[in-house]
Amino acid sequence: MSYIDEEIAQQPAVIAHLLKEEHENIQRIAAAIRDFNPAFVAIAARGTSDNAARYAQYTFGIHARIPVMLSTPSVHTLYGSAVNLAQAVVIGVSQSGQSVDVMRVVEDARAQGALTIGITNDPESPLAQAAAHHIWIRAGEERSIAATKTYTAQLVAMAMLTAAITGSTDLQAALATLPVYAQQTLDLAEPIRRWAERYRYMTYFASIGRGYNYATAIEISLKIKELCYVIGHGYSEADFLHGPIAIIQSGFPVIVTAPGGKTFDQMVDLLAKLRERDAEALVISEDERAFVNARQQMRLPAGIPEWLTPITAIIPGQVFAMSLAMAKGHEIDRPRGLTKVTMTL
Amino acid sequence: MSYIDEEIAQQPAVIAHLLKEEHENIQRIAAAIRDFNPAFVAIAARGTSDNAARYAQYTFGIHARIPVMLSTPSVHTLYGSAVNLAQAVVIGVSQSGQSVDVMRVVEDARAQGALTIGITNDPESPLAQAAAHHIWIRAGEERSIAATKTYTAQLVAMAMLTAAITGSTDLQAALATLPVYAQQTLDLAEPIRRWAERYRYMTYFASIGRGYNYATAIEISLKIKELCYVIGHGYSEADFLHGPIAIIQSGFPVIVTAPGGKTFDQMVDLLAKLRERDAEALVISEDERAFVNARQQMRLPAGIPEWLTPITAIIPGQVFAMSLAMAKGHEIDRPRGLTKVTMTL
Repeated sequence: MSYIDEEIAQQPAVIAHLLKEEHENIQRIAAAIRDFNPAFVAIAARGTSDNAARYAQYTFGIHARIPVMLSTPSVHTLYGSAVNLAQAVVIGVSQSGQSVDVMRVVEDARAQGALTIGITNDPESPLAQAAAHHIWIRAGEERSIAATKTYTAQLVAMAMLTAAITGSTDLQAALATLPVYAQQTLDLAEPIRRWAERYRYMTYFASIGRGYNYATAIEISLKIKELCYVIGHGYSEADFLHGPIAIIQSGFPVIVTAPGGKTFDQMVDLLAKLRERDAEALVISEDERAFVNARQQMRLPAGIPEWLTPITAIIPGQVFAMSLAMAKGHEIDRPRGLTKVTMTL
Repeated sequence: MSYIDEEIAQQPAVIAHLLKEEHENIQRIAAAIRDFNPAFVAIAARGTSDNAARYAQYTFGIHARIPVMLSTPSVHTLYGSAVNLAQAVVIGVSQSGQSVDVMRVVEDARAQGALTIGITNDPESPLAQAAAHHIWIRAGEERSIAATKTYTAQLVAMAMLTAAITGSTDLQAALATLPVYAQQTLDLAEPIRRWAERYRYMTYFASIGRGYNYATAIEISLKIKELCYVIGHGYSEADFLHGPIAIIQSGFPVIVTAPGGKTFDQMVDLLAKLRERDAEALVISEDERAFVNARQQMRLPAGIPEWLTPITAIIPGQVFAMSLAMAKGHEIDRPRGLTKVTMTL
């Protein structure tokens, strides 16, 4: 068994462990955030961690009405011009905690008086030490180069922080259901391993989501690029309609993340537009209406609240990317040209 | 002659007209911004306008140290949860001024007490009316569906606003040189029309920039998708190294925007990495060192300050996308499946 297959399977246990072990720390950090009363949140991250940051734009925005900015690290590193983050909560997200550019944003912000938080998988890492507060995602060592369990753990950390900031007992209670839903999603994803064969010669794709699941769409896209070397990208449904839809032609494979919720009608409309263009839709949902125009069904368990669906919806995407890489005969734990820790300025 | 070819050629005149006619209005708006003293700026936009917003993240951040957030309209429209923008300057950018989701962010922000600005090509449009202030980009009617002159005009509006906020006479003086540099860039782009033939059967690509020219990379990518129906995406150099570089193989066409400045060394390093992988680099620069590993040279005039290079560097990208679409035999003024005004919620 490959590391990535094991790490995908570990996700329910990782989530359960994180929910239990970091609960008190996150409650304490949330209290500090409420006291600080930020004008906004800024998040610095790269790669998979940046997709987790994207999720937080929606959870903080929708539940706590806090605007979230995704930071532009080069302004700090290459241009040497620290933007004024004094009124912000600034969160650095990095699996390794070693990202130089993410560190720099957090250091600049802390010097300015911002409230700083690191989210890492290593409490001894430079980022964990540099930030005033640290959330340890406790995912255990991730040996596959492509991140899976550390991504879902980062999402859960963001969801826990959101619930804690709002103080909502409903949001808090919903978190406890995640390990069971994650396990059900893994079980439902088994058929993907077989039908992924069909895509052996797929050379391009698009991946589309909206709202909370914009993050899912871009993270699925990143996994497929990293593991399968297939060209494509992840889009928000609205951005996709503003231009990129022109690329769609007969047979074009499009992964559509469409769980029930506030974005569902838009996603069903999109699926009809894709059908008009004779695209091939691979759909992640729990709702039969999403499967009407689908070639492949990637089923989610029913009942999970919309705001937590990115934590389950990514799982079939991970299984698809891994299975397709295997069908293509790639070295799935060591994709060409990548290293576990990427250093950028 | 097609509309898009005419509109690309109109850019020096459009820029000169905008610099002259909107100067006073923008000075007045900048004074209002200084009085307001925002904690941050939030920009709502879609498609090409969103790429202009990306540019402003760097100009406002680097020159005025103001953090800039790219807004998530679905939080307002689909989730009905207006984030708290009361301490922000909120800018809606839309060529037509008719984008429903962009409008909604501006309306929510204005109701909360934010300072609101619309940037449009139509002073009678709903967005121009809804915002407290309006910058009219005065580009004239754009008849091609793919935006060209309205993009450069939006960039110039952002640059003018940046110079006005800082009050810097250096920045202000630099703006005046833009029409001449834009015309020189157009002249230098002529050879692209011939060699674009080589890419007649190109089916995929990547486009990479950094800092100010991250916007250029994603806008070039959008033009190629819209006009040529070729699959690819625009990346920041740092994001590209965090995963997507795995897709690069022998002959992979990569458009690299690498003008001189603070990001130049990173981009030259990237070009060496692309060479190791035997990629085919199409390079936009004025610096010979960027062309060492280039298959194609897209030359910029020398002397333009780095912060203004996105206004020239996009021009060879526009000419390449148009020329490639013609080589492919596409209807360049009316790409399939697109309309001039895209309405999304």
